This record gives sequence, C-alpha cells and structure tokens, in this order.
Amino acid sequence: MKPPITPALVVRRAAMEANLAAMQAACTGAGDAGGVRLRAHGKMHKCSTLGRLQIEMGAVGLCCQTVGEAETYVHAGIGDVLVTAPVPPWGWARLAALAGRTRVGAVMDSAAQAQQGGTAALAAGVVLDAYVDVDPGMGRAGVAPADVAALAASIVAQQGLRYAGIQAYCGHHQHLPPAQRAAAHADWTVRLAALVAQLQAAGLAPEQVTGGGTGTAALDLAAGVYTEIQPGSYAVMDVEYGDLGDLPFAPALFVAASVVSANHASHVTIDAGHKALHPNGPASRVVLPPGSAYRPAGDEHGAIIPPNGASEGDLVWLQQGHVDPTIALHDALFVADEDGNLERWPIDARRASL
Amino acid sequence: MKPPITPALVVRRAAMEANLAAMQAACTGAGDAGGVRLRAHGKMHKCSTLGRLQIEMGAVGLCCQTVGEAETYVHAGIGDVLVTAPVPPWGWARLAALAGRTRVGAVMDSAAQAQQGGTAALAAGVVLDAYVDVDPGMGRAGVAPADVAALAASIVAQQGLRYAGIQAYCGHHQHLPPAQRAAAHADWTVRLAALVAQLQAAGLAPEQVTGGGTGTAALDLAAGVYTEIQPGSYAVMDVEYGDLGDLPFAPALFVAASVVSANHASHVTIDAGHKALHPNGPASRVVLPPGSAYRPAGDEHGAIIPPNGASEGDLVWLQQGHVDPTIALHDALFVADEDGNLERWPIDARRASL
Repeated sequence: MKPPITPALVVRRAAMEANLAAMQAACTGAGDAGGVRLRAHGKMHKCSTLGRLQIEMGAVGLCCQTVGEAETYVHAGIGDVLVTAPVPPWGWARLAALAGRTRVGAVMDSAAQAQQGGTAALAAGVVLDAYVDVDPGMGRAGVAPADVAALAASIVAQQGLRYAGIQAYCGHHQHLPPAQRAAAHADWTVRLAALVAQLQAAGLAPEQVTGGGTGTAALDLAAGVYTEIQPGSYAVMDVEYGDLGDLPFAPALFVAASVVSANHASHVTIDAGHKALHPNGPASRVVLPPGSAYRPAGDEHGAIIPPNGASEGDLVWLQQGHVDPTIALHDALFVADEDGNLERWPIDARRASL
Repeated sequence: MKPPITPALVVRRAAMEANLAAMQAACTGAGDAGGVRLRAHGKMHKCSTLGRLQIEMGAVGLCCQTVGEAETYVHAGIGDVLVTAPVPPWGWARLAALAGRTRVGAVMDSAAQAQQGGTAALAAGVVLDAYVDVDPGMGRAGVAPADVAALAASIVAQQGLRYAGIQAYCGHHQHLPPAQRAAAHADWTVRLAALVAQLQAAGLAPEQVTGGGTGTAALDLAAGVYTEIQPGSYAVMDVEYGDLGDLPFAPALFVAASVVSANHASHVTIDAGHKALHPNGPASRVVLPPGSAYRPAGDEHGAIIPPNGASEGDLVWLQQGHVDPTIALHDALFVADEDGNLERWPIDARRASL
C-alpha cells in the first residue's frame, strides 16, 4: 500500500479491529461476567472516527485528557466523555457548555476545582459528573487516598456537580515488566479496596471506580475493584507496549516515509524527523527494510542506517516507540484494509488546546 | 497578558518585529550594500501571517522544508517559495500545480529528481526553479561539491526546469560556539567560493547561492559568496540560539501553561507535556516563576520544581529549547502588543505533509 503523502500514519485495519474486539471481550467477560465498563482513552488517537468505532463495539464512552479533546469528540457525536486530568481555570465554562449536549464528566483534585466546576455548571444550567482524582503514588496529579473523602464531600456540596465516583490511574505501573507489574498492582489494589470501603462507610460510595491502562488492563479487570477501565494504546500498540511481551494486542500502526536522498553508502535520508516521529519513549523501530536503524536528522528528516537496499523514492516503514505524541503530530490516519485500500480518518482532536 | 487557552504560544510583538527589522537591515546593508536577499525560513513558524510580515519588511520570499508548507504559503498569497529539501516522488506534481500561480523553486540532489521535477513541470505547462543542493559536510542530503556541475548540467537539460543556482546549508555550524563557528565557516567559504568559480568556468554560473541560518547569518552576509540567506529562528529565538551569546536577536516566543494540580510540596503540575513542549534540543526553561525547573510528566503534563510560589490556577511561562518542533505542535501564535492585547495568528502550515 502507498499513502498519498509522506510521512504518513498507516493503520492495518484488521489488526486494529482485532485489538478493539479483544479488549471489549475482556471487559464484557470481567466482573464475574457482569462486565467492567470500557471507556477507551481518546488522548491516544485523537480521532473521532476511531472513537465512534470503539463505542459501536461496546465502549461506554471516551476518556479525554484535555478540554479540546472533549469538545472535538462531543461535536463529532460521541455521547459520553470524561476528562481524566484536572481542568485549567478557563476550561470549566467550556465543559459546562458541552454538558448541555451530552454526559460530561471531569476529575478533580482540589476543592477549588469543585467550586469552579460547580459554579460553571450552575451558571450554564447543567450538571457535570465529578470524580475525585486519587494519586496512587505517581505524583503527577490527584489527592492522597487519605484526602479523598473530604474532596468527595466538597463535590457533594456543589449543586452543579453529581458525585460520580473516583479515578485512580497507575501510569507508573503500565510499562513495568510482567512480574513487577503484577506485584505493584496487587499492592495498590489492596489500598484501593480499603479506600472504597472507607468511602462506603462514610456514605460516599463511589458509583464508578475508573482507571487502568493498556499495560495493566488484565490486572485491572481481575482486581474486582474497578468498575471501568481507560486503556488507550491497545488499539494500535507501539514498541514500548509490544516489548513488554505479555499483552494480547498486535502492532497496527506504522509510519511510512519516503527516501528523499541517497548519496551516502552509510545511510539514506527519509522525510521523517522530529516533527513526524516524536522522540519520547523507545527509539522508532525500522520495520522495512529489516535490519536497519533510525536516527533523527533534524526536524523533517531522518537517517536509515544502513540502507539495506532502500533507495531514492522507496517507502520505508517504522513503528513508533510511544504512539500518543506521534499521532498528535499528524493530520490523519490512513486505514488500510487487506487489499491495501486506504481510508483517511482525520485526527480531528489534534487541535485547540492540544 | 492571559491567553484564552493553555498551553499557548505567546509572541511579544515588539521583540519579534525588532528581530525581523534587525535581520532585514543586516541583509540590506550587506554585499557591499548591494544587499543580500533574505528568504526567511517558513519551516520555523509555519505561520503565513508571520511570513507575509517578513515579506512586507523586505524578504524576497519564503523557504519551505516540505511540499505542504509550500502549498499553504502559496494559497495564503505568498509569492515566491523555495523548497529547501529534496522532494519525495509524490511532491513534484503538487509543486508544479503551485508553479502555475507563482514562482516556485526546489532543491535537488539527484538526476532522478531533476527528471521527475522536469517531467511534472512540463506536464503542467510550467517552469520550476531548480537548485543543486550541495552537501557542505552535514551528511543529511545534497551532493558532494565535486558532483555539483554534473547535476547542474542535468537540470539545464530539463525543459521544465530553470537552473537557478545552488543551495548550501551548513546546519552543523549553526549552534557551534562563536570561535569554532567562525573557523568552520571560514573553511567552508573557501570551498564554496572555489565551487562557484568552477561552475562559472563550466558555463554553469549560479544565479543564486542560497543557504545560511540564524547562527551563521552575520558570517554568511560577510562571506561575499551567498546571494541569499535562509534564517528562520531569528524571528522569535529559543534557548539553544540565545545561549550562544553572540546573536543580536531577543527572545520573543514563550509558552504559557496553567497550574492544574498543586498537592505536593516538591512541585506543581502544569498542562504542558510532550504534546506541547517538544523535547528536542535543550530543556524548556522556566521564565516565571524564576528559579524553577521544568520536567515533563507525561504527554499532557509537566512538573515545575520547586513551585516557587506558583499555585493552582496560576500561569507559568517557559522558553523553548528548540522552537521549530514545538511551534509545529500548536494551532496558533498569540501575538501580544505592549498593552497585553492578543491577536491570534493561525499556524496554518501545520497541516498536510507536516
């Protein structure tokens, strides 16, 4: 298959759909078959076409990491969004405007946020679902488990908010090797279950306990505490998750680049650099030609070392180390069927406030 | 000043305009006052509003690093563009279509590209300006000086191409400390002058000798060989160029982010991570609060360490290590006048083929 432009993100549709089906089946079959809700994370793909497919296949809605993502998804017809990171001050009125159209939730990690969110919702005549963001030891955002009940009470006190539960996202567990990951997860599960029991005792039982990601999904589903999980990367995978070796998802997203210069024996130059392949995470891996390595060579170029037969005008194929920030650099996913036909899916949430 | 969303790129208009004026004055006053052409590099800002301002102030046109940038700029009314990197196979027909509207040039580093470009231009009934891309020892693209005359002859043989000269971009000199930079530049200038003399003797005198960047601009202008220079970063600057210490341009672009979480004594969390602050180049520098450092904390978040008084809801200001790939992550520049009024300039060339 040959995308119309390069560099281009190309998705193998069959592999992606198999990944979506596998995660949905795992969720449906969990919770002693009562099921655990799948709320796929839209921050990974920023693509409402892919988000709608996840929902058609059984997801209850999408997670968003930014207000801009929530706006894009709601305007694209997605009916239930949850903003999974604390909202900046300017964001509350915009979320309240969205909540006039569909169910909108947001996590909070301070009483000030509860007050701002509640005030904005009240002014707009809507109700926002509010979740206490629990810090499971990542140190990025969230409140310590000991402070969750107090913040839940602040949320309950806000007329514009509906207390919907708690979020606990263990980002620091996602990429651990299997045995360490299971141990860290088991330890955290005990603490999370204790927190839920404490909230129940205080009359603040969480309707939803949401969290989890691609790396811990199997553990999250088996834990018996989460009512909803939030994985993102499973849909297309990347080098970082693939190399864990224990996840039942296939690589489905590749970057196609053109060889634009071939005047050296040591390497050829492709039209993909810092602006097309985000350097966060493991290095981009060259899939074709096999046996070559990729090295960035500026904002718009990279070197394929050695060329291994790649010559001027050829396509080179790579897999990304960490898929999320690379997708955020592009305009579209080119989704390929088994015959190599391509469909263009806009990365439409790549806009506004990132 | 307070941008309507965060993270946001905010440009101090006075500082930017002073940078544009300083570079234009240096170009106008060079070449023993016959002037050296300024063709500002549009890959840095990807913003046609800023590009038009550069042309209003005296630039002859814009450089582009991609076909997509050239398309955006021409459709936005910019009248003379040069693609400064070898064009992938799919790009020639698109450039030829643009050349029906305005002057379009492209560099080439192989006879195959000359053939493809010439064929596309002929088919479209246009003429493309063609430049031989010379590799001054960067090893990224371009032909060795010894091979320039042969490629120039291939260009001359193509009916759809007009042989317009040569390009020599010394990217590997731009960030050297002042003394090393001057020495490397002097060495290269001798070789470049010899190449030009050789081409003249062969009846292939280059009308234009184009190249150079922000780091070497003063040297390029004094060298007496370049007829046109291609700087980009001078317009807004970044940490990498500012820290060289010898460039007469002021920092004019800053990133504003919101503190969204403040539950730790060690740091506060802002809404700017890998997707808002590209990690290439030196680390992002915290301007406000003074004395703090920035550390990425995921795709959408970062930590300000220590908080130094920043609290939830506050704006934090940063300067970027390497400005080009960070601008390419955003939708707009918010251009601030001295009263703090903001104008939104779309980063409209952030699209299509990057």
